[in-house]
Parts: sequence; structure tokens; C-alpha cells
Amino acid sequence: MKNPLIVLLSDFGESDIYSGVVKGVISSICSNAHIVDLTHNILPQNIKQAAFLLKNTLQYFAPETIFVCIVDPGVGSERKSIILKTSDKYFVGPDNGLLSYIISDKGCEIYELSNSDYFLNDVSYTFHGRDVFSPAAAHLANGTDIQKFGKQIKLKDIVTIPPPLFQKEALHTWLGEVIYYDSFGNIITSLDAKEIGASFENIQDDKIITEGWRFEIAEHIIKGLKKTYSCAKAGELLAYIGSFGYIEIALRNGNAAQTLNIKSGDKIRAIKFN
Amino acid sequence: MKNPLIVLLSDFGESDIYSGVVKGVISSICSNAHIVDLTHNILPQNIKQAAFLLKNTLQYFAPETIFVCIVDPGVGSERKSIILKTSDKYFVGPDNGLLSYIISDKGCEIYELSNSDYFLNDVSYTFHGRDVFSPAAAHLANGTDIQKFGKQIKLKDIVTIPPPLFQKEALHTWLGEVIYYDSFGNIITSLDAKEIGASFENIQDDKIITEGWRFEIAEHIIKGLKKTYSCAKAGELLAYIGSFGYIEIALRNGNAAQTLNIKSGDKIRAIKFN
Amino acid sequence: MKNPLIVLLSDFGESDIYSGVVKGVISSICSNAHIVDLTHNILPQNIKQAAFLLKNTLQYFAPETIFVCIVDPGVGSERKSIILKTSDKYFVGPDNGLLSYIISDKGCEIYELSNSDYFLNDVSYTFHGRDVFSPAAAHLANGTDIQKFGKQIKLKDIVTIPPPLFQKEALHTWLGEVIYYDSFGNIITSLDAKEIGASFENIQDDKIITEGWRFEIAEHIIKGLKKTYSCAKAGELLAYIGSFGYIEIALRNGNAAQTLNIKSGDKIRAIKFN
Repeated sequence: MKNPLIVLLSDFGESDIYSGVVKGVISSICSNAHIVDLTHNILPQNIKQAAFLLKNTLQYFAPETIFVCIVDPGVGSERKSIILKTSDKYFVGPDNGLLSYIISDKGCEIYELSNSDYFLNDVSYTFHGRDVFSPAAAHLANGTDIQKFGKQIKLKDIVTIPPPLFQKEALHTWLGEVIYYDSFGNIITSLDAKEIGASFENIQDDKIITEGWRFEIAEHIIKGLKKTYSCAKAGELLAYIGSFGYIEIALRNGNAAQTLNIKSGDKIRAIKFN
Repeated sequence: MKNPLIVLLSDFGESDIYSGVVKGVISSICSNAHIVDLTHNILPQNIKQAAFLLKNTLQYFAPETIFVCIVDPGVGSERKSIILKTSDKYFVGPDNGLLSYIISDKGCEIYELSNSDYFLNDVSYTFHGRDVFSPAAAHLANGTDIQKFGKQIKLKDIVTIPPPLFQKEALHTWLGEVIYYDSFGNIITSLDAKEIGASFENIQDDKIITEGWRFEIAEHIIKGLKKTYSCAKAGELLAYIGSFGYIEIALRNGNAAQTLNIKSGDKIRAIKFN
Repeated sequence: MKNPLIVLLSDFGESDIYSGVVKGVISSICSNAHIVDLTHNILPQNIKQAAFLLKNTLQYFAPETIFVCIVDPGVGSERKSIILKTSDKYFVGPDNGLLSYIISDKGCEIYELSNSDYFLNDVSYTFHGRDVFSPAAAHLANGTDIQKFGKQIKLKDIVTIPPPLFQKEALHTWLGEVIYYDSFGNIITSLDAKEIGASFENIQDDKIITEGWRFEIAEHIIKGLKKTYSCAKAGELLAYIGSFGYIEIALRNGNAAQTLNIKSGDKIRAIKFN
């Protein structure tokens, strides 16, 4: 590839050397790779959050991008390492469900990552991100054929995790869940705005509020859907459509996740009443 | 451009995916761009801090560098997006004062960023950094003429914010303000060391202290100006000339901002008495 | 160099603009440099931690990599700046011991960094990382001969710091120390697993525990050496071989460093009893 882009997604946290070392490994094999941190702040071992963010951000990356995904509580066990190819991108990581949200029938292929020719010489029990996934990604970027990494696996044979909760409970009621909260305490949910018919399209007024919605979360009721954060008063809880197309809950000038004592997996209900 | 450099300045914080997604957008349009994080830790919505840091760091970047500036509390409202060209660099961001400190009469041009040919296909109400500023910056890096992004705006017509407080109160007295404090609690002020005549030039002794200064901040008095941090005793407050040429206040082996309970905008007075 | 790689190691912390400015300086001199953050989270002024991490991670970087090392409590004093060349890599930083762990007799050369032709025009008293080390690294990447930066220094003439504590106390007993703890509170020690004969090589069972070890740290006794983190029960302290080959102490689902009230330099003893 001419200007290969390798993207890192992990739960390393920001404060350690792990992501720096991974970049060293990649650069030492593919010296012209551009390396981008998608995030290293997946909540520790939260495979579902990682899978959700991966699915919802990959559209912003160019074709041929290679993602190295390291949320790997089973490292050192018998879980497989895999390379997944969609119609236009590559993903390297553990076979633990992290990559299961991006599988589709259209042009998707999966290979076991088992050929140690493409690993570092010494493979540790604790850091396959460095010793297995990163060198494989760099070799892919160098043009190594995906079939050389190991035998092909059927789509149905990889480990999957349940999709984010998203159910239509009644004609105008949907049930979703909290996926995670960001560093400002804004709560990202699985309620897909398009699917529930929430939209501000063709509405120019930036102070607009759609009154006909109610959201129930952690024994709180939030009335209305606001177009922007600035529609809410200081200290007020608000629901809005986040930048990835899902309903988010925030507390203006505050931390919604802390105030509501929210954790991943908590339920949220959306009710449309006009 | 041959090795285009795009620099990011935002209040995203470090812990989320927003900066990673912005890099994806840029790379997908301009695959050979080098992308550098100036900082993502502007205090939330603190336009003044962002404007101050931008002005004081841009000299360290090469000609033709493109800055993407995302401190954007008015996103989704009617505030304009703009591209500003100085004699040798480019700046993309909201028209909210963030870019107002770098305007000068010498070769400065401003264009509205309104041509949606250079936006992502779907523009959200909440994340113009991703959907508008980043793609525009990448197209600039690809060589798109600045006049194609929208109509030219007169310098006097963009939104400005007040300059940092810096007044000569008397022959030897200056009044300034706290711009922000860094992660160690060191307090960065608007007191320009050169302007107030504070200097250690031609002084080789690294233990030197200039006695003839007094600084008043938050009901504390700090005597003397020290050449380096190591001139102070443990637990002692000190004033020194920071690496960007402004007076800074630190607490040796401690956190000055917390100890003095300082916030952005607090006043500081410098008095020279010999 | 064709795709020069410059690696940054510092105690800046993540939240400020210092690393961004350093990247600006490097890019403005060597526009095709790839710049990687190894870490900016060295504990403030902890030269020993920086030296240890540098020594244990440089193997993951390609030949010709240039490391810029900025843990520099003596900046502004008379401490020298140096460039160190090993058989295949370059290191720029202060002469304060930071680079002393990587010196060897094989092809190692050291030069004083004193030729101000390779500095920024204005050199501050407080930020040689920006004004001296970074421009020198970028000039090196551009191919400037190392001898042009200043006069050669004998290996024995640079400042050294004591090596990490690692003593054989008895036939089966070793004494080491805590180097640092990571953001999860995992404690990284100086006990070299290979040197003390701790190994899981040729052991396929991922639930394996080697019973014949005892570790004493901060009045706690940890029995056994576990192959992976997942061998321990929730709330249990465990010893394991970390990904850089040293004994590490963790608390499953907790923060070992906080719970044990550990700090850098605390002692740890390993006893093998079968």
C-alpha cells in the first residue's frame, strides 16, 4: 500500500508505554505506515464498548485501513487470533466477539492468525497486541497476502457477543441500554435515532426542542429531545442525538453519568407520544 | 503539498474517540498528511485559552501548516465556520473568537467555510470538527484553492474576543490575568516577560534570583523572580519566566493552582521596585 | 533517512501542549519524520523509571530510530546535553543518567550537544526539550553527521545513575525493587524473570500456576507465580511475568499499588523453594 493507515483501538489507557511500543513494532516492519490512535480508553476489558465504537466509527476511515483491536482479557488462553477482511477494510484482533459487530455477508472473510512467521520472535503470554496483532497488521500493510496468515474460518465459527439491546416494545416505545459514558459524563445509548424516528432534519432553528419525546433512565424522566446541548439550562438533564446517530443523555454543565450513577448495560426507554 | 502537516487543537479531552475519528476523516481525504495533536485538553469551551495557546505556539510549526481548531460551544447554531490564512499558515475553525488573536494586517485573509462540496456528506448538529473543519483542512492540504471554500470576509467582520488583560498601571506596575494552569498546577499568566522588562539574558549563573520583583496574586505575595524552578525551596511559591515568555507561578513540589485556589481570569500584578 | 522515526519519552504528562510543540519543532526541520509518543507519563523527574523503560523498550523499534528523552530536572543548570549512538540507534537528551542504562562497549559513541547551529534561535532556560533536543534530533534525521553537534565524550565521563536493585541474596533468594506502577496500579519490579529462573516456557495450560515461589513486598506475602492475570481470583494479589520480562505484582480487579501503598524504590524479595 502507498500510504498505509493503521488504526489502534485498545483498553491500554493513556498513561503507559504499551501503545508506544505497539507503534514501534509496526514502524519497524512497515516504516511508511501512518498510525492513528482511535482510542486507548475503552473501559478495561469492555469488549462490547469496543465492538460498538468500532462499528460506528469505521465509516470515517479510508478503504484499506487496517484496525488493530486490543481488548483482550483472554490473552494467554486458547482464544484464537484472527484477521477479518470486510469489503474494504482489515481488522486484526482476538476472537472474543470484539470483531463480531462488523461481520456481514457481503465480501467478509476471516482468517486465523496462526502463522508465527508473522509474529515477533518471542511471543509473551500477556501481550499479543504487541507480539502478534501489531506485526501481522504491519505485514498486511506491506502487502502480505491475507491467506498466508493462517487457514480461513467460516463467518459462523467466530465468537460473537450479543448485539446492543434495542427492542421495539410497543408502537411508540423502544428499549435500549447504556453502552458507555464519555469523559464528560455524557451517556451514549444504543437507541438509534433514525430507527426510532427522531430527527431534526430540515429544521433550521438551532434552539428547537421536539416536545413529543420522553426518556426513562435510572428512575429519571427526561422530557423532550433537544437539538443541541445549548438548548438546556445549566444543571438540566437533556436527551439529544449524538454525533454518531444515537440518543445521548447529558447534564448541562455537569456529569450525567455520575449524577445518575449510571453504568454500562443500564436500561433506557424512549417513548414517542405524538 | 508534499508532506502536509495538520495540527489539531481541541477541548475533546484525551479519553474519547473524537480525535481519532477526526484523524480518520483527514486521512481518508489526504492520505499523506502528517497529523499532530497540539492539545485536546483546552478547558471545556475555554475559547480564550485556546486562542492564547494558538498564538503562542504557532511559531514552532513550519510554513504551510494547517491548524484545525475545535473549541466550539456554538456548534449547531448560526455561528459561521471560517478559514483564515496568515502570511504563512492556515487555520480552520468556528467564527467565535478562537482565531481572533492571530489576525494581523500583513497578508491575512479570511474565507467563510460554506461550500458543502468540502464537507462530509452528512453534517451533524454537534460535531463540525469532524464533519466540516477536518474535511476542509484535508482538502486544503490536497491543494484546493482557499477561494473555493466560500466567499471572502473582511478582517473586521469576524467575531473577536477581548485580548488577555495586560495593562501598565504605573511606571513600574503591570496588571495581568491568569490564562490557565497546566497539569502540574503551574499558573500561566498574561504578563509578557519582555514587555515588563524581566530577563535573565547574559546571566550564566543558574541559581540566580532577581530580587527586584514582587508579584501579587489571590492575596499572596511572591517576592523575587527566579531563573529556574530549582531556585525555590520545597513548598515555596515562585515566579519565573515560562517557556513561552510569560510569567508563570509555581509551587515547588506542589500544585500552585490548587493551593492558591486559582481560576482562569484571576488577576495578577507585577511590581518592579529597583 | 527515508522514513525517519523519532520517538518521544518525557514526563510532560498528557494534558499540556509541550509534546505538541516538540512535534512542531521536529516537523518544521524534518517534514517527513514519523513521530511516535513512547510515553509522556514518566513520573515527574523520575530519571530511573525513564532509563529503565527506555532500556526495555528500544528493542521494539527499528534500527536508525532516534529517541528524544526529556526528563530534565536540571534544565537551565550546567548539566550537558548529549547525543548517544549505539550500534543501531540514536538518543538525544540531558546528561543526567537517563541514557546511562543503554551504554555498552559495543559501538557506542557519545557527543556533547553544544553546537548552537542546531538549536532553535532562542534557547529558553526551562525547555531544552523544545529548543535543543528536538531540533538536534530532526537534524540527525535529516542526515547531519553526529560529529557536527559537538565534541566526542568518553563513555566513562557521562553521568550515571545506580542500576535497578537486583541482588542474589542466597542460593534461591533475590532482592529487587519497585521501578514504578502503571495506570492500573500494576507494580513493575526489577526482578528479571529469566535471571531468577522463572518461566512458563513449554507449558501450554493457560491456567497453570507455579507453586514453588514466594514474593515478599511491603509486609505482604504472595504465594506462587501465575501464568496470567486470569489465574487469580477477584481481589487476590498475584505475581506474574510481565510483558517486558520482569516480575509484576497485580491485584485482580483492583489497584495493587494503592492497596499496598507502594512507591518507587520499595523492596521486593523473591524466594524459590523447590
